Amino acid sequence: MQVVIVAFDDFTDLDVFLHWDMMTRVPYLYPERTDWRVRLLGTEDTHTSMGGLTIPMHGTIEEAVDADAVIISSGKGTRRLIEDKAYLARLGAALSPQRQRIGSQCSGALILAALGLLDGKTATTYPTAKETLESFGVTVVEAPFVRHGNVATAGGCLAGLELSGWILEELAGAAVRDAVLNSAAPVGARLEIAPYRASSSTVEARGPGIGKNRAASRDGDGLGAAGQHRAKVGA
Amino acid sequence: MQVVIVAFDDFTDLDVFLHWDMMTRVPYLYPERTDWRVRLLGTEDTHTSMGGLTIPMHGTIEEAVDADAVIISSGKGTRRLIEDKAYLARLGAALSPQRQRIGSQCSGALILAALGLLDGKTATTYPTAKETLESFGVTVVEAPFVRHGNVATAGGCLAGLELSGWILEELAGAAVRDAVLNSAAPVGARLEIAPYRASSSTVEARGPGIGKNRAASRDGDGLGAAGQHRAKVGA
Repeated sequence: MQVVIVAFDDFTDLDVFLHWDMMTRVPYLYPERTDWRVRLLGTEDTHTSMGGLTIPMHGTIEEAVDADAVIISSGKGTRRLIEDKAYLARLGAALSPQRQRIGSQCSGALILAALGLLDGKTATTYPTAKETLESFGVTVVEAPFVRHGNVATAGGCLAGLELSGWILEELAGAAVRDAVLNSAAPVGARLEIAPYRASSSTVEARGPGIGKNRAASRDGDGLGAAGQHRAKVGA
Repeated sequence: MQVVIVAFDDFTDLDVFLHWDMMTRVPYLYPERTDWRVRLLGTEDTHTSMGGLTIPMHGTIEEAVDADAVIISSGKGTRRLIEDKAYLARLGAALSPQRQRIGSQCSGALILAALGLLDGKTATTYPTAKETLESFGVTVVEAPFVRHGNVATAGGCLAGLELSGWILEELAGAAVRDAVLNSAAPVGARLEIAPYRASSSTVEARGPGIGKNRAASRDGDGLGAAGQHRAKVGA
């Protein structure tokens, strides 16, 4: 399975890095999943975030054609890209909702709309992108996450957990989704310190089923049912 | 004001990038705060995360001496560093809880403990780091965030919002804290699309007081009181 995150200059930091972190937890928690690959794709060797961090890309947007899931990140850069016909042609040729899960984060919805992927659909986005998204004929709804088949939109940075969760469930199943999301929860939410065993802490980095951590009953953020999960990342 | 995030090889991605994102929202939301500076400090020109992302540092750990607040990130790398006397001497010489706010994320607590900054204190950490933290004589408590004066610990990646929130409030006030945290909330939580005005979307990137967004009443994650806030980042 390959998950691609599309980045560009002036991306919102968290809207790339939250997905990057969640997705790269899969091979860490499940080292047997040697087919799991996460890549950042752009148009240059590096792209610089709105916060000023320059990070390397793993390839170009054309390579999204090989992905099972594609996340379009967000930020001021989207406003420039929806006017860039060459960019849209390159990215559009690589995307197919028939064979890929495609999701946007915040103003990434503008790019999906510019590609025609939200035609006739409802969607969510960041508040500042609402009117531009509506100008594409998209009906904007007040929700953190909106999905129609293989195309989804997330609004608000932390709604990225729902977008990541959807892709994780679709590509790897609900157990993997819960393990990944719970491993990043705050202590006291779906992550507990107390049940952790010494026998597992010595091999914390490896092996499924090791380091299981009983989930707490609190489930206040709507991220789905808690269950047995692993607490090996974020160590 | 200068906020420093200490990184190293094998850092947990989100435990650097969440703080980086939150802290760099301040000058974006408040461009008049020209004194606000956020820097990543390490021991090399670049450091590589557990997820495999290589990012540039802005300086070396010695430069933390000039910081008003210091966040120690987390990850497998902490286990190596708490055995590295030279590293601890360098970092320890730069830190002072008398004049700085100092916080750790997840297993970053191990570094604080190795520096003696948690002596006689309770603290939280990531489940996998519990026993090592206890080996320093620290009492580990089941909580997302534990603070004693100018020294705080956060356990679980998303508890980083509490750590960032504490530093934002201490250095910039409660209004800035709320504006930053709310700007990253999911739509429907403390972020609403509907009240957003066209007149502000045209200048979304600049100017305090523009793009105010009424906060929703839901406040389910304990991140503090919601209020009037801005919705300009994450665009």
